[in-house]
Amino acid sequence: MKEKEKIHTISELGEFGLINRLTKDIKIKNKSTLKGVGDDAAVLDYKNKKIVVTTDLLVEGIHFDLTYTPLKHLGYKAAVVNFSDVYAMNAQPKQITVAIALSSKFSLEAVDELYSGIHLACENYNVDLIGGDTSSSLTGLAISITAIGECDDDNIVYRNTAKVNDIICVSGDLGSAYMGLQLLEREKQVFKIDPNFQPDFVKYDYILERQLKPEARRDIIKLLKNNSIKPTSMIDISDGLSSDILHICKNSKVGCCLYEEKIPLNRQTIDMAHELNINPIVCALNGGEDYELLFTASLNDYEAIKTLLNISIIGHITDESEGKNLVTTDNKNIPLTAQGWDTMEK
Amino acid sequence: MKEKEKIHTISELGEFGLINRLTKDIKIKNKSTLKGVGDDAAVLDYKNKKIVVTTDLLVEGIHFDLTYTPLKHLGYKAAVVNFSDVYAMNAQPKQITVAIALSSKFSLEAVDELYSGIHLACENYNVDLIGGDTSSSLTGLAISITAIGECDDDNIVYRNTAKVNDIICVSGDLGSAYMGLQLLEREKQVFKIDPNFQPDFVKYDYILERQLKPEARRDIIKLLKNNSIKPTSMIDISDGLSSDILHICKNSKVGCCLYEEKIPLNRQTIDMAHELNINPIVCALNGGEDYELLFTASLNDYEAIKTLLNISIIGHITDESEGKNLVTTDNKNIPLTAQGWDTMEK
Repeated sequence: MKEKEKIHTISELGEFGLINRLTKDIKIKNKSTLKGVGDDAAVLDYKNKKIVVTTDLLVEGIHFDLTYTPLKHLGYKAAVVNFSDVYAMNAQPKQITVAIALSSKFSLEAVDELYSGIHLACENYNVDLIGGDTSSSLTGLAISITAIGECDDDNIVYRNTAKVNDIICVSGDLGSAYMGLQLLEREKQVFKIDPNFQPDFVKYDYILERQLKPEARRDIIKLLKNNSIKPTSMIDISDGLSSDILHICKNSKVGCCLYEEKIPLNRQTIDMAHELNINPIVCALNGGEDYELLFTASLNDYEAIKTLLNISIIGHITDESEGKNLVTTDNKNIPLTAQGWDTMEK
Repeated sequence: MKEKEKIHTISELGEFGLINRLTKDIKIKNKSTLKGVGDDAAVLDYKNKKIVVTTDLLVEGIHFDLTYTPLKHLGYKAAVVNFSDVYAMNAQPKQITVAIALSSKFSLEAVDELYSGIHLACENYNVDLIGGDTSSSLTGLAISITAIGECDDDNIVYRNTAKVNDIICVSGDLGSAYMGLQLLEREKQVFKIDPNFQPDFVKYDYILERQLKPEARRDIIKLLKNNSIKPTSMIDISDGLSSDILHICKNSKVGCCLYEEKIPLNRQTIDMAHELNINPIVCALNGGEDYELLFTASLNDYEAIKTLLNISIIGHITDESEGKNLVTTDNKNIPLTAQGWDTMEK
């Protein structure tokens, strides 16, 4: 066997060798990172900026299926979902720490793949990997990433500050990542019956990418800033539009009215939903993992927002007493309900 | 069945209900915590202070065995090992985020127990729990905690700043946590054979507590500060004295000379080691999980440190060319070697 074809085990390197291998090429990109990997803790200097901190955990068999998830994409996604939370505060991600539990089924090359995705995400979003922990695991893979970001004093946008009559806006389109997941699950079942089956993914490239390699909406934060629009409240859509608008409503003590016809859907999402006999609006409301930004803005910003690409105005904030409703295309009021983890991820 | 005896499943509550239950009683203790749990990210304000960040991951079957680890103690330990890393930078822990993957074998009451330990550690060390993530897991329990701490501008102590002729000091005693683990493992084996066997742990209470409920040495950081002693380098002992002094030497490009007779051992550690026919010095060198502080200090501080309780002077820093050695009681030089994860945790 030639050297380049040899698969290496993690135990050949040991913990210190593995950490060294995974971190040796890191170059610090941000001034706020004084000391990255290599001590008991990293050291940061944010001067007079505010600091935002968020943590997300991805677990094998719950959040991802390695049958169809390339490890590089998984690493990329694990980092990006945290960046998305930072942008949802109207802040900029600057550092991450990465904790990974790995079973012995993972070769060194597999770990390299996973980290290459994390490093690529850091590169693309100008973020420093400053620390973490690596452990064996008796079973599957788990990745916990903590992202740290910065924001100027008065720019942070919370969930609890939406006001009655504010417009409700969302970036991009919704339900695509969920449709991508349904497609992958379907092809996995087909593959189990016929291992020679080659799925044709070409016409569904967009929804697959939305599931496997999502991006965080840094561009939207920049777009809003360039147009001098500060949202009155904001959240990223990880659990689905329905759950996430309910978070804003609950925290802001307001109601909302969303219009079905205004909810942005991609052509592929609609096609796939029809193939699977699902209402695409249900995917947008409850699918989750869109990592789009859902925000409210003052009615004064309506004209400006209306002209922006990639942002849809989908409803408005109402008094709490009016409830949280979706107005359907045939003009019926349907109360929105929370979904998320309990029902979608099992 | 009476209500109070009923065991509840996590799925009865769902994700949002669980998060609410685990975080509803949190009261923010630190001024630097502007916003804790409840948004996409927490928001901190460290003003002109430096920020330190560290992450540790504990995995069931690798770092702990639930056969003999009470969940409350596990939660406490998972938080405290992170605080220890923060103190090892000469900083003060202020916030943590907690990511937990839980299999369905855990009842709601079990999760409450785990979190009660985390909350107690936060209470005792004046730290705010500001966020995190909770997920199901197909198998065991994994806990990843990120701690954030603060430090005045010039007070941070790194690993790479030890100088030739500095004295090497360590707090408390070493090897006890490892002996506690060996005792628990032995009793587990006995219990497997005779489930009615009741182990007598009274005479080994100290080493058991060191394993199951370690504390971070905040008191030592305070003691040094009160005596105007700033270490020249510092690390906390998680992998064992040998590995951790080698980290300081490698990072500082120096050698070291440790004296076997100076290494602090507790009476129970010595007794247990003799019972198991192990050299207690080997436990101190390679056992790990001591969470004591290992630091170097200027020779000028020798007289002051000599008088301090709970700190032992165990050697000195040498030129790199002299190597890293342990001088045994019979005056032999033994090169120190790294252990840790590869050999001890399997």
